[in-house]
Amino acid sequence: MGNGKVKVAMIGAGSWGTALSLVLADNGHTVYLWGKNQQTIDEINKVHENKKYLPNILLPDGIHGTTSMEEAVRDAAYITLSVPTKAMREVIKQIIPFVKSPITFVHVSKGIEPESLLRISEIMEEEIPKELIKSIVVLSGPSHAEEVSLRHPTTVTVSSKSMEEAQKVQDLFINSNFRVYTNPDIIGVEIGGALKNIIAVCAGITDGLGYGDNAKAALITRGLAEMARLGTKMGANPLTFAGLTGIGDLIVTCTSPHSRNWRAGNQLGKGRQMEEVLNDMGMAVEGIRTTKAAHQLSEKYNVELPIASALYNVLFNGGDPKKAVDSLMERGKTSEMEDLINILASQYIE
Amino acid sequence: MGNGKVKVAMIGAGSWGTALSLVLADNGHTVYLWGKNQQTIDEINKVHENKKYLPNILLPDGIHGTTSMEEAVRDAAYITLSVPTKAMREVIKQIIPFVKSPITFVHVSKGIEPESLLRISEIMEEEIPKELIKSIVVLSGPSHAEEVSLRHPTTVTVSSKSMEEAQKVQDLFINSNFRVYTNPDIIGVEIGGALKNIIAVCAGITDGLGYGDNAKAALITRGLAEMARLGTKMGANPLTFAGLTGIGDLIVTCTSPHSRNWRAGNQLGKGRQMEEVLNDMGMAVEGIRTTKAAHQLSEKYNVELPIASALYNVLFNGGDPKKAVDSLMERGKTSEMEDLINILASQYIE
Repeated sequence: MGNGKVKVAMIGAGSWGTALSLVLADNGHTVYLWGKNQQTIDEINKVHENKKYLPNILLPDGIHGTTSMEEAVRDAAYITLSVPTKAMREVIKQIIPFVKSPITFVHVSKGIEPESLLRISEIMEEEIPKELIKSIVVLSGPSHAEEVSLRHPTTVTVSSKSMEEAQKVQDLFINSNFRVYTNPDIIGVEIGGALKNIIAVCAGITDGLGYGDNAKAALITRGLAEMARLGTKMGANPLTFAGLTGIGDLIVTCTSPHSRNWRAGNQLGKGRQMEEVLNDMGMAVEGIRTTKAAHQLSEKYNVELPIASALYNVLFNGGDPKKAVDSLMERGKTSEMEDLINILASQYIE
Repeated sequence: MGNGKVKVAMIGAGSWGTALSLVLADNGHTVYLWGKNQQTIDEINKVHENKKYLPNILLPDGIHGTTSMEEAVRDAAYITLSVPTKAMREVIKQIIPFVKSPITFVHVSKGIEPESLLRISEIMEEEIPKELIKSIVVLSGPSHAEEVSLRHPTTVTVSSKSMEEAQKVQDLFINSNFRVYTNPDIIGVEIGGALKNIIAVCAGITDGLGYGDNAKAALITRGLAEMARLGTKMGANPLTFAGLTGIGDLIVTCTSPHSRNWRAGNQLGKGRQMEEVLNDMGMAVEGIRTTKAAHQLSEKYNVELPIASALYNVLFNGGDPKKAVDSLMERGKTSEMEDLINILASQYIE
């Protein structure tokens, strides 16, 4: 593995972990893709396909599937975590015994933990012993796994407290189809990626109700303002919400049927019950848990989040989706600047 | 016409003029909808349908079609212009002889005039004698005519130098399906509506090339930055680009096949020639002319507009659409903050 080619441990063999493994393998790196489902791993190794999560994509030879965390992590130059927020702490506990020296951990997940209200890099800081952390880098942006695996043009952002390490991760992943940008605002990058899933569930609901593109555009516009309003209170740079991990990821998640958050909302809008929808999806729908976290954050930071609150009421208090959307459309405020100015007020205007 | 019900002249019987007439008629106002095509006007009056531009929608009784400008404008409380930017000056010349006292003119068009580089309200100020202008109000936002005519929830923004008159126009149009907000930044509202059509043509090209949602989200994100960068130089409040007439209208125009700008780009991306595409559309594609204006604005204000410039090269210099998009994806800059900070730099950060 000369010429800067390294071994990367990719923890999590879902659609995104598999697609990112493909990017790394395309760049000449050796990827140990860890998953717990023996059948999936066998298929990856024998027929070079992840039939369950990324069907019909031939995976490059540089990807080695494994169910052994030791095999995945041993001597890796980077450990990348691609697991649902819910599984993050448990998976890190499985990794740590095999980490022998400080290393850079990358995560590619999008959520906020309810109760603790921690971002994913903060969960990692809690769970990984300090002496084993070289740095923590997040990779996020508008990127459906299906399109990445087809080598369609895609742009993402990396961020970290250490921009030197973020740049190394940029170099690791970047190629002519997969463009990687840097942004030093790790808070904004993580918050944007998490909160957009809430808006995406709502966009799915409006589409499920048959409300059309005008209504969805209004929802997305207000959603962005809401994300920026909360994010700024949490220490993010409001400009980050105007970038790839903010508006970019918001658009792709709200307007594409690839998005599982949109799909979940769409089913709710069509009148199905939440449990039924989640059972059918068979994948994590981060937006559901993140809505709970946002509801708690709204109280902690004393900031109004009309969209997240309306969705919280639908998801956890049996509220009617149609009434929730209608009441959002009919809110009293009629000067849009009042809303917009609030976004930047705390940092730039006051 | 008591209870605040008035006569409104709607000049231009295309899809948007017809849909807005329907909103006004739903609100109890009497609308004189002017068009030059006798057959269209006859159909509106006899079968209450605009078969060419808004098929299968039953128009309310309050809409009266006319080809007589005098009949449309005489004693109207408001004159609303819904004509392509290209036709604006000529149509105003036809209106003026019948305007006897100062009146509020509303426009609902989205463009910038090449050569003069004027916004639409500025063209109106040039063409309408000062003594006949009570005020000029723009109505803009994410609003496909087809959805408005189906009474799907829609939000738009009104703006004017006179916010008092803007609020009167807000009252005129607002109802439970059609929510109208105010924003005092008329420059930003007009510029956003105009420039988003450029990005929409490009989004159509990337879709026509089969590049997928990830690429389109990246394009829209950069497009918003580009709109805000130019708009701010022209005196707009950068926050307006985060609102309904900025990101809202941008999203709806880039992601919906209702949009004629997207459709034109889509055909270009599929390899067809511009003349052929425009002939087939049979409607004004504002984004084409606006691209020419943006190219000139880029030179006048010395501001880089990579997307508009790439499209200009495709539209007016025979450039290859695929090469243009590929070169946009491969631009050198790798720190997204450099781009984002430029948006707000001139007004808020320096």
